[in-house]
Amino acid sequence: MAKKLVKEITDRNSDFAKWYTDVCRKAELMDYSDAKGFIIYRPYGYALWEGIKGYLDDLFKKTGHQNVYMPLVIPESLFMKEAEHVEGFAPETAIITIGGNEKLAERLIIRPTSETLFCNHYSRIITSYRDLPKKYNQWCSVVRWEKTTRPFLRGSEFLWQEGHTVHRDEEEARKEAFDILEIYEKLGKDFLAIPFIIGTKTEKEKFAGAVNTYTIEALMHDGKALQSGTTHYLGTGFAEAFNISFQDKDGKVKNPYQTSWGLSTRLIGAVIMVHGDDSGLVLPPYLAPTQVIIIPIQQKKPGVLEACVELKEEIEKQGVRVEIDDSDKSPGWKFAESEMKGIPLRIEIGPRDLENNQCVVVKRYNGEKTTHEISIVDESIPPLLQTIHDEMYQRALMNVLDNTKSTEDYEEFKKMIKEKPGYIKMMWCGDRDCELKVKNDTQATSRCMPFDQTPIGKKCPICGEDAKHLVYWAKAY
Amino acid sequence: MAKKLVKEITDRNSDFAKWYTDVCRKAELMDYSDAKGFIIYRPYGYALWEGIKGYLDDLFKKTGHQNVYMPLVIPESLFMKEAEHVEGFAPETAIITIGGNEKLAERLIIRPTSETLFCNHYSRIITSYRDLPKKYNQWCSVVRWEKTTRPFLRGSEFLWQEGHTVHRDEEEARKEAFDILEIYEKLGKDFLAIPFIIGTKTEKEKFAGAVNTYTIEALMHDGKALQSGTTHYLGTGFAEAFNISFQDKDGKVKNPYQTSWGLSTRLIGAVIMVHGDDSGLVLPPYLAPTQVIIIPIQQKKPGVLEACVELKEEIEKQGVRVEIDDSDKSPGWKFAESEMKGIPLRIEIGPRDLENNQCVVVKRYNGEKTTHEISIVDESIPPLLQTIHDEMYQRALMNVLDNTKSTEDYEEFKKMIKEKPGYIKMMWCGDRDCELKVKNDTQATSRCMPFDQTPIGKKCPICGEDAKHLVYWAKAY
Repeated sequence: MAKKLVKEITDRNSDFAKWYTDVCRKAELMDYSDAKGFIIYRPYGYALWEGIKGYLDDLFKKTGHQNVYMPLVIPESLFMKEAEHVEGFAPETAIITIGGNEKLAERLIIRPTSETLFCNHYSRIITSYRDLPKKYNQWCSVVRWEKTTRPFLRGSEFLWQEGHTVHRDEEEARKEAFDILEIYEKLGKDFLAIPFIIGTKTEKEKFAGAVNTYTIEALMHDGKALQSGTTHYLGTGFAEAFNISFQDKDGKVKNPYQTSWGLSTRLIGAVIMVHGDDSGLVLPPYLAPTQVIIIPIQQKKPGVLEACVELKEEIEKQGVRVEIDDSDKSPGWKFAESEMKGIPLRIEIGPRDLENNQCVVVKRYNGEKTTHEISIVDESIPPLLQTIHDEMYQRALMNVLDNTKSTEDYEEFKKMIKEKPGYIKMMWCGDRDCELKVKNDTQATSRCMPFDQTPIGKKCPICGEDAKHLVYWAKAY
Repeated sequence: MAKKLVKEITDRNSDFAKWYTDVCRKAELMDYSDAKGFIIYRPYGYALWEGIKGYLDDLFKKTGHQNVYMPLVIPESLFMKEAEHVEGFAPETAIITIGGNEKLAERLIIRPTSETLFCNHYSRIITSYRDLPKKYNQWCSVVRWEKTTRPFLRGSEFLWQEGHTVHRDEEEARKEAFDILEIYEKLGKDFLAIPFIIGTKTEKEKFAGAVNTYTIEALMHDGKALQSGTTHYLGTGFAEAFNISFQDKDGKVKNPYQTSWGLSTRLIGAVIMVHGDDSGLVLPPYLAPTQVIIIPIQQKKPGVLEACVELKEEIEKQGVRVEIDDSDKSPGWKFAESEMKGIPLRIEIGPRDLENNQCVVVKRYNGEKTTHEISIVDESIPPLLQTIHDEMYQRALMNVLDNTKSTEDYEEFKKMIKEKPGYIKMMWCGDRDCELKVKNDTQATSRCMPFDQTPIGKKCPICGEDAKHLVYWAKAY
């Protein structure tokens, strides 16, 4: 039985895309809805988002951000105010044209992002330097019409947080964009066990309306990159377009400096594709809704279930999220199910274990089995979860390092991309045409210009002109 | 200055409606957006919703409910499946007709409520009695097109939770509808300091598609009732319309029994209108984002600010949410501001207080001032907050009792409603026409049939036929 369940998903290395959707479905993370591109977040999938949300919300609040909720809809005239922004988002909007059985006088755009709504509000509530900074965030869903969709990675609707801040001067605003990037990086490092490459987006890849866009990029198991969150320094462009101004200490009326930043349910996709394996999902311990599953062996034998319950209570006292599977399924089936759901630790207790006052502990991420004394195993769980987290992070980091190459030769670059996907570091002249050429030739795109810009060459290998930037290139989701 | 700020809001008794919107604006709970009927939840208003959400979410999870997220949109054909439901909601829908610059083949309804989405999903994932019960909830926004709107009370978009559960038998489903009603009642009693009248809705007032609707009704300061949350026993109607069935233990294929229930940001309106006064908002202590505000008097005098900071730290240790207002505004202005925001307790510390090792503590809800020894005041705060909660609840309860009358004479009923709004208990024959007559004659509607149905008369005073139900009648928001 257990094997059958496991076999229900495609091998990861034979068809990564199919393996991915299999895991999404079989781990009961999501279901498709009747509206194309709109998915249902099932309890287990939504719990992952609640975990990410809880972790970030706490950090946002500790750094002085406040949550708000803006309307779902943007009147078309308001949406049109910032030219670059409109150009970027208009093609993928969904539009309400009918309300209460009547054709609307003005069409309403379902928010694809809420810069326009925040700016409009800010223009009303900001008048003095005393009103600054404003550091608002909201948790909501947004709609961007997509032709090809994949669960969590690309959908017509997704859940996210969007931060929108206003500052008195450029320095403070630029610092905000970096501070949030640090929070995003910390989420990866301390919570999701995902190492991010961070850096600046090129002009071509930046957010519509931003001066600079910064990104966290994750590398999936198949060597493709996934943009996992971005922060934008907006300068005064939106403030000018939306008439946000304040009287400064010197009495002069000025436009403030803004940022925006967002991170979405895409990250659930990143967790699946960075850590998952042929048995299903593999969850990093701090994200996992259930961190430890206790599975009784021959549970009808006297003392077995009692020992499980007792152990569960002891482990709970350590602040660990632990469950017992005492259903009437076979142990093998339970193992397979808990593996599919990616529960970080499994504890097995059977009659023979009880005789020896021991239990078997199995790490999900690498299958490592150890035997522990039952009476003291509870105390070893929290450090063991930390160890698993660290090991998973290390494994993911090794995958990044093993799949990061560099070259000064564009022909070699093309070969590398073709042979095995991954990051390739290569210099770039800064010209949009060279960037487009890379994309046309190889499907790879510039993922970011890392903050450490130590050059690895003097010329742009694409055109031969002087190189200006070091770039991470990769195929991406 | 302080007086000026206070005077900015209308007197509560001179124009309750205007007082209400003044408080919404001046306490910075909300702002209007450019889309009519869609409001902006500002940080202080959203924090109230986060408080309610946190309290309920915890209780929902403790009682075995799981959060999910369903799509924002419902394909029109899916929306049309349950006849009564469609009839109830179709007139107030907002409809997306354009996506990605193209006219959609099928129009998409923005969810006004998500029964149809949940049922469709349930029909796919439920096959056996082993799959039951399913107890799902979601936190989201819904859209119902409204012509006349008021902040929090009635808007084209509002935030809410909607629970949708599926059960093996009727008894379990009926119990669920009552269990949730109890949770809602507890929210009022223990968190919002609002006493609810609970009972069953009449056929005319029940939810479109329900067998029974149960309600919590709150009485506002002006004597009007506010429906504050409802739970619905749905029977098997939706299951039949959406083809949800399961194989029971006896091998037979059956339709399961369902419930749904919801509570929204309307409750913020209830808090304002039950507790607020001429100085603004009055928050019950457990809901208040800031429970205690410390205001230094002559804060530049040596020792004053230090004493405030020290006290703040001690109070925080008691698990209380406390802030200091050390801005350069005058104490009077600070008093007025903290009153407008409804902060339950104010502590004043000035040089003379310091000399006497004391501070002044002022209860927001009734202005009561007491003097406390500084070194031990921190420990008295938590019990004081509980006392305030209890007193606010009692005051609100007295308002309900003082404004609940009963009659067996319809002419008297009409006079009573005209003279002073409030609840009127009166028997009813159960006939829809009598209910409509009351509404036409007086604008009052049946709020609920309380669970205690001890009759107060034998005849329906409206038509003279035999009475069947005791009903609470009132004008309502």
